[in-house]
Amino acid sequence: MTTLKDQMERRRATAFPAFLTLVFLSVFTSALFAADADQDLVNRAKSIFGPLPASMPSPDNPITPAKVKLGNMLFWETRISSDGAVSCVKCHPLGLFAADGLKKAVGNHCKENPRNSPTILNAAAQISSHWIGNRTNVEDQAKQALIGPPSFGMPTYESVEKILKNMPGYVTLFHDAFPKDKDPVTSDNFARAVGAFERTLMTPSPFDNFMNGKAAALSGQQKRGLQTFLDTGCMTCHYSPYLGGQMYQKFGVFQPYWNLTKSQPVDEGRFAVTKNEADKYVFKVPILRNVAATPPFFHDGSVDRLEEAVTIMAKLQLARDLTKEQAADITAFLGSLTGNVPASVLMVPLLPRAD
Amino acid sequence: MTTLKDQMERRRATAFPAFLTLVFLSVFTSALFAADADQDLVNRAKSIFGPLPASMPSPDNPITPAKVKLGNMLFWETRISSDGAVSCVKCHPLGLFAADGLKKAVGNHCKENPRNSPTILNAAAQISSHWIGNRTNVEDQAKQALIGPPSFGMPTYESVEKILKNMPGYVTLFHDAFPKDKDPVTSDNFARAVGAFERTLMTPSPFDNFMNGKAAALSGQQKRGLQTFLDTGCMTCHYSPYLGGQMYQKFGVFQPYWNLTKSQPVDEGRFAVTKNEADKYVFKVPILRNVAATPPFFHDGSVDRLEEAVTIMAKLQLARDLTKEQAADITAFLGSLTGNVPASVLMVPLLPRAD
Repeated sequence: MTTLKDQMERRRATAFPAFLTLVFLSVFTSALFAADADQDLVNRAKSIFGPLPASMPSPDNPITPAKVKLGNMLFWETRISSDGAVSCVKCHPLGLFAADGLKKAVGNHCKENPRNSPTILNAAAQISSHWIGNRTNVEDQAKQALIGPPSFGMPTYESVEKILKNMPGYVTLFHDAFPKDKDPVTSDNFARAVGAFERTLMTPSPFDNFMNGKAAALSGQQKRGLQTFLDTGCMTCHYSPYLGGQMYQKFGVFQPYWNLTKSQPVDEGRFAVTKNEADKYVFKVPILRNVAATPPFFHDGSVDRLEEAVTIMAKLQLARDLTKEQAADITAFLGSLTGNVPASVLMVPLLPRAD
Repeated sequence: MTTLKDQMERRRATAFPAFLTLVFLSVFTSALFAADADQDLVNRAKSIFGPLPASMPSPDNPITPAKVKLGNMLFWETRISSDGAVSCVKCHPLGLFAADGLKKAVGNHCKENPRNSPTILNAAAQISSHWIGNRTNVEDQAKQALIGPPSFGMPTYESVEKILKNMPGYVTLFHDAFPKDKDPVTSDNFARAVGAFERTLMTPSPFDNFMNGKAAALSGQQKRGLQTFLDTGCMTCHYSPYLGGQMYQKFGVFQPYWNLTKSQPVDEGRFAVTKNEADKYVFKVPILRNVAATPPFFHDGSVDRLEEAVTIMAKLQLARDLTKEQAADITAFLGSLTGNVPASVLMVPLLPRAD
């Protein structure tokens, strides 16, 4: 005979496992859903961005070890500037992820440049160099910098070549890098060597691991931030493995940018190049790789904090008021774009000297 | 019976080996003499200079890995200067053996410094830092640079500390380096960290191998140059493993230095510090380690070529007219002081950023 007590105990004995099963099932299915959601996010990110390639070859300037070696040395070379103090590194210090941390770049004799130094890490695959499309690519940028009045400030390309030719170590290195050239120490080859070096400056980051299928490479907040980045429409302009650099866009689609950035003076952007009214306040969409490590932000460095820059962008470009939480999430996601700078790139090369 | 022909042949047979023996003996003894001469030169060099130590510890600032790590980062830090563009590296670029190649150093907002940037490689063991004895040691130099109007140009030490405290990465690094300090982010600890880093910057060179007994580490010309360096009296001032840095001396013992250097304006040297008439035109004797790699020369960078600097020095300080060959030999010898910069020192550290 079973007492009521017996029945109760039997029920409890079966009920408890049933309850446990329910808990397990719930955890399991929500993990499954989470895994599904992660996989969806991975797939979506992969289709819109895609992981970084290993380098950015160009048919016009094939990457060779000899060219990269020379380019790396020239990248540090100050003796080819009008005050002997400007090298590529001046505006692109590697310890600060190859941006100088200043509002606007400062060149020879402390001349202020018109705009903020963009990082040159992962920068070679953009439609153009600099902010307004007046430098076709990294090679063109490197070459023009030599005689740019606010950058290296040299009077002529010949004056640069003369200095380099006076250092036998460089003459040998140019011959090694351009073995078919009879007289290889030219500004065009300077540009090719520096460009080849820059084409190797890739910094894969946790976000690449995520796109390669490791969902745990991003924190929960970073995943939410990525989701918001996609849902809000940031990726309309900031796409490609570089999250930008592929198009020009008006800065301030829904209201003048200087309303929010407090920029002074107002920069008319690409209009300066094309004189086309439609290009007023148009800038190249900057890449977002290493953005968290390269303040201040915007073409004039007018904003210091990334979260503020994110909030301003949503308002100006998408007429969206992000909540504080959304802005923080996107900022956290952008942190996942801070990459590994290869040790070889961080090594200072010893430079040749005059005999 | 032996014919005359036989005798002649026998004589030739014994005479030829005798001639050979003579040649061998002569080669052998001159090799012995050369080895003796080399050994004499090694011994003499060793007693006057002595090889570089592995580092330059100081009782006041013990070297620890945490201090060196922090000091290395601070060495590259531009964000603690008044224009955000000056770090220790500005005047001491490692790719140029930690001297800037300019006549006179250039600091914040392109302000010219009164004198030439000396290399900071092997520099910590000198009687003082800089040229005229107004910086007691590398720590004092590092600290004073922060508020030096023509160097970092910061208004106060507190303003530097505020910037560093705003970067959590630095706060942690200061705590690691100065574990006993409650509030370790101070300018004094900045100085200790940078100083500890500088105390590790040793660059052993072929000349150290020579002093360690490898006579072949120097070429024939370099050995002649060393001999002339010793015989002429250069080592009266340029002694110690650093070949200098141990005393002050009047620049221009036998005639005003500006007669030969064409210096403009004339720098009164240590007189500016002591106001003692006897210190007019007195400077610290610079170290000669890496001298061939760090033009231009003298306190004002007034001479570009090492051979000319050598010739001028002999005339000004020793009233000796070196022959062209002697000057070339000494210059070749000085080339043997160009050392190996450790790879760890050439690696750019990634710097903390503000949160």
